[in-house]
Amino acid sequence: MSEKTKVLLVGGTHGNELTGVHLLQRWQAAPDELVRPNLTVTTLFANTAAWQANRRYLDADLNRQFAQSDLQNETITHQEGRLAKSIAAQIGPKDQPKHDFIIDLHTTTANMGITLVLNSDCAWALRAAAYVQQHMAGVVVMSKTTDRMEDTFLISMGRQRGIIVEVGPVPQGVLNGQVFEDTRIAVGHLLDYLSTMAQNRSLPDTINAYEFEAKVTYPVDDTGAIIGMIHPALQNRDYHPISVGDPVFLVQTGEVISYNGASGLVGGFINEAAYYDQAHAFSLLRPVVLKVL
Amino acid sequence: MSEKTKVLLVGGTHGNELTGVHLLQRWQAAPDELVRPNLTVTTLFANTAAWQANRRYLDADLNRQFAQSDLQNETITHQEGRLAKSIAAQIGPKDQPKHDFIIDLHTTTANMGITLVLNSDCAWALRAAAYVQQHMAGVVVMSKTTDRMEDTFLISMGRQRGIIVEVGPVPQGVLNGQVFEDTRIAVGHLLDYLSTMAQNRSLPDTINAYEFEAKVTYPVDDTGAIIGMIHPALQNRDYHPISVGDPVFLVQTGEVISYNGASGLVGGFINEAAYYDQAHAFSLLRPVVLKVL
Repeated sequence: MSEKTKVLLVGGTHGNELTGVHLLQRWQAAPDELVRPNLTVTTLFANTAAWQANRRYLDADLNRQFAQSDLQNETITHQEGRLAKSIAAQIGPKDQPKHDFIIDLHTTTANMGITLVLNSDCAWALRAAAYVQQHMAGVVVMSKTTDRMEDTFLISMGRQRGIIVEVGPVPQGVLNGQVFEDTRIAVGHLLDYLSTMAQNRSLPDTINAYEFEAKVTYPVDDTGAIIGMIHPALQNRDYHPISVGDPVFLVQTGEVISYNGASGLVGGFINEAAYYDQAHAFSLLRPVVLKVL
Repeated sequence: MSEKTKVLLVGGTHGNELTGVHLLQRWQAAPDELVRPNLTVTTLFANTAAWQANRRYLDADLNRQFAQSDLQNETITHQEGRLAKSIAAQIGPKDQPKHDFIIDLHTTTANMGITLVLNSDCAWALRAAAYVQQHMAGVVVMSKTTDRMEDTFLISMGRQRGIIVEVGPVPQGVLNGQVFEDTRIAVGHLLDYLSTMAQNRSLPDTINAYEFEAKVTYPVDDTGAIIGMIHPALQNRDYHPISVGDPVFLVQTGEVISYNGASGLVGGFINEAAYYDQAHAFSLLRPVVLKVL
């Protein structure tokens, strides 16, 4: 049986954008509205402290805190920096997202109607946005391409990122029935599409793959000339585990150089002719499981 | 009727990797092998000069020349730098790709079997790779996530990028029947999948969207305090064209400041309350047509 697609629905990322917060309350009272075949939908009330203060944020904009470098930066200790780290611990880590797609509910004081903001040119978000446009009049798509790990927005914590539903005009700290309904209906269409997409697939849920980790260079002399070769025990062993102590290089002198690096890795591009000019002997790769959506 | 998905099939990106070059010759003789419903498949023999010299490249690795910054850098004038610019002129520009997906055929001297290299974590490439793994034994997937515009590989010229089919071991300048057949069959599966994916869609081919272009800030005094407001004629005009001379700001003194920027743009986030702290008055957006795959 196919694994369900995991969707995270976020409100209150900005504490004074009330629509998302009140929609979460509605769905707490009427959870059936979020149920779709092949989907697991969970909700997150992102910044409760800012909401209690009726402010966008207390110290810094939460929706700019999710770059991987900032999440890993221990010197960022303000309220929303800590909050982002705590959210990331819950729904991440960022390089191993727990959710496939994130829908983040926002409002604006600008007259932007129903705008879907994408941070990626990946087919998934584009298709979902096209589906909503197809089923709902007046929906605008705003797009910007960012690297997922550098992306500062909360939706970047999703495996295939997600979509910000940005509806306005409505003042900060104000609920507006039309904005509420427009947002609710747009979310419904997004869930419909994600459900259909999850339904029609006959592909495996995950694939085993390898991610590039590091280059290993040949031993060289003072002039930079290569003085070793791939050890016979490593030759042809692409995608096999390399352990500390395994012979890696045979030096022309007869000396054997053993592996002394991280564990859990495999070799790739072992003895690739094209890389001799860079003294690049082989690559270290990390086995990973990629989720196929 | 739905527009066809455009696939570019590339051989000879590295001149001494003969398999791709000879596959292009085969398909020239037997073009039916590339025909699929809903696909337009074109071929490209990327580096003929390097192939004639039986070298990977003449001056520099062609498959590292496709970062947008390098394509736009007029000081890069070596053979493969010029070649990349000429290929980009043919199949680009990079921000407006002519092809939806690129399959680039490579070989390696390493014992890597049939490896599919992805440069993106977008669902499309992942799904295509999963499909090939499902239909062909021993296929390995190697993944690395890069920003499409910064990605230096030729496959980054595709709208949803593409897949490198990397098969080995085979020496440089050598054809190997098994490597040839493995590559040919893997390409067949990729085309099968892309065709099926194009077939099952009921979405529009394109959507109109807006891309962020620039922020426009409020007029401020010497202390940095905002001394103007959105002009009434601009208020609520999100997503409407802005032309040179249109009133943009009303200064408290009564002075009107007019738009004096690029043409063809629209405003967005006009008078967003949350941006006053950055004196950010509105955003300029560029209307774009996004292709939905």
